[in-house]
Amino acid sequence: MLRVAVLGCGRIGRMHARNVAAHPRASLAAVYDIHRPSAEEVAKALGVKAAETPQAIFSSPDIDAVLVATSTETHSDYIEQAVAAGKPVLCEKPIDLSLARVNRCAEAIKGSKVPVQIGFNRRFDPGHRALWKSVRAGDIGDLHQVIITSRDPAMPPRSYYEVAGGLFRDMTIHDFDLARFMLGEEPVDVFAIAGRQIDPAMMNELGDSDSAMVIMRTASGRQCHINNHRQAVYGYDQRVECQGTAGMALSDNRKPHEMRRHAEAFTGQAAPYLNFFIERYSEAFNAELSAFVDAIEKGRPPEVGFDDGRRALILAEAAMKSVAERRIVKVSEIG
Amino acid sequence: MLRVAVLGCGRIGRMHARNVAAHPRASLAAVYDIHRPSAEEVAKALGVKAAETPQAIFSSPDIDAVLVATSTETHSDYIEQAVAAGKPVLCEKPIDLSLARVNRCAEAIKGSKVPVQIGFNRRFDPGHRALWKSVRAGDIGDLHQVIITSRDPAMPPRSYYEVAGGLFRDMTIHDFDLARFMLGEEPVDVFAIAGRQIDPAMMNELGDSDSAMVIMRTASGRQCHINNHRQAVYGYDQRVECQGTAGMALSDNRKPHEMRRHAEAFTGQAAPYLNFFIERYSEAFNAELSAFVDAIEKGRPPEVGFDDGRRALILAEAAMKSVAERRIVKVSEIG
Amino acid sequence: MLRVAVLGCGRIGRMHARNVAAHPRASLAAVYDIHRPSAEEVAKALGVKAAETPQAIFSSPDIDAVLVATSTETHSDYIEQAVAAGKPVLCEKPIDLSLARVNRCAEAIKGSKVPVQIGFNRRFDPGHRALWKSVRAGDIGDLHQVIITSRDPAMPPRSYYEVAGGLFRDMTIHDFDLARFMLGEEPVDVFAIAGRQIDPAMMNELGDSDSAMVIMRTASGRQCHINNHRQAVYGYDQRVECQGTAGMALSDNRKPHEMRRHAEAFTGQAAPYLNFFIERYSEAFNAELSAFVDAIEKGRPPEVGFDDGRRALILAEAAMKSVAERRIVKVSEIG
Amino acid sequence: MLRVAVLGCGRIGRMHARNVAAHPRASLAAVYDIHRPSAEEVAKALGVKAAETPQAIFSSPDIDAVLVATSTETHSDYIEQAVAAGKPVLCEKPIDLSLARVNRCAEAIKGSKVPVQIGFNRRFDPGHRALWKSVRAGDIGDLHQVIITSRDPAMPPRSYYEVAGGLFRDMTIHDFDLARFMLGEEPVDVFAIAGRQIDPAMMNELGDSDSAMVIMRTASGRQCHINNHRQAVYGYDQRVECQGTAGMALSDNRKPHEMRRHAEAFTGQAAPYLNFFIERYSEAFNAELSAFVDAIEKGRPPEVGFDDGRRALILAEAAMKSVAERRIVKVSEIG
Repeated sequence: MLRVAVLGCGRIGRMHARNVAAHPRASLAAVYDIHRPSAEEVAKALGVKAAETPQAIFSSPDIDAVLVATSTETHSDYIEQAVAAGKPVLCEKPIDLSLARVNRCAEAIKGSKVPVQIGFNRRFDPGHRALWKSVRAGDIGDLHQVIITSRDPAMPPRSYYEVAGGLFRDMTIHDFDLARFMLGEEPVDVFAIAGRQIDPAMMNELGDSDSAMVIMRTASGRQCHINNHRQAVYGYDQRVECQGTAGMALSDNRKPHEMRRHAEAFTGQAAPYLNFFIERYSEAFNAELSAFVDAIEKGRPPEVGFDDGRRALILAEAAMKSVAERRIVKVSEIG
Repeated sequence: MLRVAVLGCGRIGRMHARNVAAHPRASLAAVYDIHRPSAEEVAKALGVKAAETPQAIFSSPDIDAVLVATSTETHSDYIEQAVAAGKPVLCEKPIDLSLARVNRCAEAIKGSKVPVQIGFNRRFDPGHRALWKSVRAGDIGDLHQVIITSRDPAMPPRSYYEVAGGLFRDMTIHDFDLARFMLGEEPVDVFAIAGRQIDPAMMNELGDSDSAMVIMRTASGRQCHINNHRQAVYGYDQRVECQGTAGMALSDNRKPHEMRRHAEAFTGQAAPYLNFFIERYSEAFNAELSAFVDAIEKGRPPEVGFDDGRRALILAEAAMKSVAERRIVKVSEIG
Repeated sequence: MLRVAVLGCGRIGRMHARNVAAHPRASLAAVYDIHRPSAEEVAKALGVKAAETPQAIFSSPDIDAVLVATSTETHSDYIEQAVAAGKPVLCEKPIDLSLARVNRCAEAIKGSKVPVQIGFNRRFDPGHRALWKSVRAGDIGDLHQVIITSRDPAMPPRSYYEVAGGLFRDMTIHDFDLARFMLGEEPVDVFAIAGRQIDPAMMNELGDSDSAMVIMRTASGRQCHINNHRQAVYGYDQRVECQGTAGMALSDNRKPHEMRRHAEAFTGQAAPYLNFFIERYSEAFNAELSAFVDAIEKGRPPEVGFDDGRRALILAEAAMKSVAERRIVKVSEIG
Repeated sequence: MLRVAVLGCGRIGRMHARNVAAHPRASLAAVYDIHRPSAEEVAKALGVKAAETPQAIFSSPDIDAVLVATSTETHSDYIEQAVAAGKPVLCEKPIDLSLARVNRCAEAIKGSKVPVQIGFNRRFDPGHRALWKSVRAGDIGDLHQVIITSRDPAMPPRSYYEVAGGLFRDMTIHDFDLARFMLGEEPVDVFAIAGRQIDPAMMNELGDSDSAMVIMRTASGRQCHINNHRQAVYGYDQRVECQGTAGMALSDNRKPHEMRRHAEAFTGQAAPYLNFFIERYSEAFNAELSAFVDAIEKGRPPEVGFDDGRRALILAEAAMKSVAERRIVKVSEIG
């Protein structure tokens, strides 16, 4: 059993802690949160100790690995400390909002064999993964186009925006990673537009966006489109489509169940899609954890490593620059 | 061009007349209706003559074939007269409500080579036909079960019931034919229940039923279920499903278009199914006509012949007897 | 935390034990199996004790409730012992293959307030439950017809048939319960046919069937059809459809994910349905357990009680009699 | 009856001629083709005269309107001649490959009341039209994003490319029109990338593209994405999706029928989508003709006028400039 400590006991951290506790090859060793009562509540519910400091975790001989789900600005520090302590780390995305900080972190852990996995959970979703396998197996021939639709169910509160780092680094970053995963090649050109359509007043004040469209191209000519929107009232909308020379394949949305109604006015599902990522990607979060455990047990690098986190951030910065300067941006301009 | 006369200018006759007029290998030669103004209206709209009597049609050297869409009690007479006149005939179902009359008609036309096709249009529906081909091609292995769902969108007016001959001979008769078509074998046992659920008062007065369930079995052991209902407010519901050793295949309902909406309250088609048989089976009615023209041009027997009409009626009578006597009825008891 | 012991460590028992261990309001207190190594293996994996005898469980003050997943012939005994010991019991279906034994068991526990829940898990499936709620809420108006499709993915081994009690008591019994649940009324008439289509030689030897069709009617006139087949190569096929005066609603099959492929030869899901009940009804098994915990915590009768188990068996016997005597059977003839 | 002459007897002209002949409120008055035997073949099949010159049609008192389906370079001339002759004209897209020529044509017909309709048939597709109505009715709240997927089933022959005017003016032009129709506003910014992925060698030689992605924005901030591909082996892929504040709606592909198969290896449609525009948009071509007849009968301007043809071409030129100069192009730079 891999003894895993979870840092961060907010919404996502709590979910990760429960997943670790229920995992057949992992056990929850400890939890930590800067807000001590949160850590204690989770610790009590899951029958473990609440560590008083992160350092207590990094230095404990009874902890084999750490899962970092704290606020973004602490991620790089904890990755560096975990690696220094020789503890494999699964860290939520993004590594940091600053590419400079990410690069320093990369420098700090350079050469280490300690596994670092970034929490791009969508790669582990059964539908997306089946799509990826199908594309890699050649089922659709040569891959030419990837189209990613990614829409949140509802606008987060203003406080969320204030620290999230903007649409591209907060929300699209998942899609940038998924794009790289599906394309199987690095994008070289990025073009993006961003909108203030849902709550223009707040977006103007914050200098943020609530909708976006992106086009990217790889060196070999593969094309990718991403569209984002923060208010899909019909539920979290997560679709990926791949077009190739021998066919098309897509990973569509998942419904809570398959009950349909047929009435005079409509024929269809009587319920919206699964509401948000905790529900929609519950299988993915578990599979991501299993992949982390596997990588450690088998001594191989994680499927989604530190550099994947860095590259997704570079694409986000390229998109931001494209919006700011109203032009196509070469990825090589960023990093 | 096959010169076809249409007898009967009601709702169905009118549709047939238009189909004949628009057919690439047929032309509309004349129309007739016992209610002369109806015939004249259709004749004028389609640029043909309204015949004064059926006999004028049967004896005309300028008419190659007839399509009978008059009221049921005239069908057998017109079939006999058409055959006597050497004119191929496509006759709407049922041949007659009385099996005795059908048997006399069979006797009357026995030995004739003049093609007689019965209007079981559903066999020509693209979806049902594709299903049949798939089953016959062995795609699902050995066929074991056929399930037919057949529900009308709304109760017809009382006047309709008074002459229709009861649920099994009016509505289920189509399903009995489709069952024989799909099963590829003759049913030997019939069990049925009938309900008075939608308008019990009227059904009691008329001694008719507005819902039913049937189970049939063939000699080799294939099983078939039919369910009928007269009030599918969500539109004409027409489904056929075949279960076999190597898979299952089904012909599902057809929607007017593929526009879907996703809202907070539901996710689905914003429109009901096609309302009724004229719309749902429009392609089938045309394909049925083409098959009739083909049979005549190529001198081969129609795909759906007189005996198919007779056998569907026998199954209807078996079902009626099953309901009346609350027991399983052998088809051999009837005819 | 409700301390639950699980009796029976076969495939289903193991799944129940894991569910209990992971349940937020229950804990696994002990396991038992007549084959001691099985019990020990499960006990070790889940960190609990393997009881040496069932009696050790029934008499333990540290066990609050029992979950019975042993072989069928022991169910009634364990229900009686659990009730005598004052321990709530969740027992897998069927209660027994013999109605006489079930009736004796009913007599034995008569008057007791100890909760007895029968494992008709399908009532707790999210789709079926949403359908039931929709029907009960009046969304489809008055309910007239229920159609249940229930097909296993593959023939079980001969050894399974030898003790299963025949198709109707082993497989259809779930559908009989679901029919009662959906109909909201007791069936009064049962008609059934059974087939030996998939493996006629073995079925003849065993006197069993591998396919069936059933029609039932309630006193108020509601109609129900069930079809069963033991070899749906495309995966476990579990559908329920309800037709009413104001619409239709159905609970359709669940796919493992929503990845679809579009190729020259086909357009659709690249994977079959979920293979069998452990996968298909995983949410249902958990919800069933939660309902059991709820009933105990809140001191109210279980949603699916002993009499539901008895009535489903009566319908199975009625169907068997109908097949044997080739006639409609009144439920009142049985019990 | 509106007496309509059809100019051009190629694949599309022939289809239009048949549609006119079968239309309840129009009759086919004459056909013309520069290749006289083609005209004569069509004329014979449909029982009309083959005109010797276009002028014979424009000057005939027995012809009320003309439908132009000749090669692109003749469209502007025929529009000018038809308008000069006072004959309403329905002209296939595009008006011309040269915006300068289109502008001269606009000048030539300026001020005339003679109806000119451009053949953007997709606006009349039942699904796309239902989507448009739903969006305009406010069903999805404020419209924010439009996503258009438009993929041809197979690469046309080299000879086609040589005269077609390039991907954007030949293929995407339909999508530009559909985008304007759905957006309800004029795009102001256009960004596009184009690929040579399917047949790079031929595309390089011709200086054309076989795939593309476009992003556009309107003055109010609405966003639009178009993706094109010339080789959808699974059939003509035509989808439109609209995202708004209160929901999402989409017009999906149409299948030839609703027969599905369930096998071990897959679950889905056993047939690809409708192959190409003649089949996919058959209802649309008829509805387009009806709209033309309506406009003339009721003396109102056509739903899709000359300026719509011009504006779609401007967007195509903007996309071409964007590809050539690797930058965002303002529509106002073009025309």
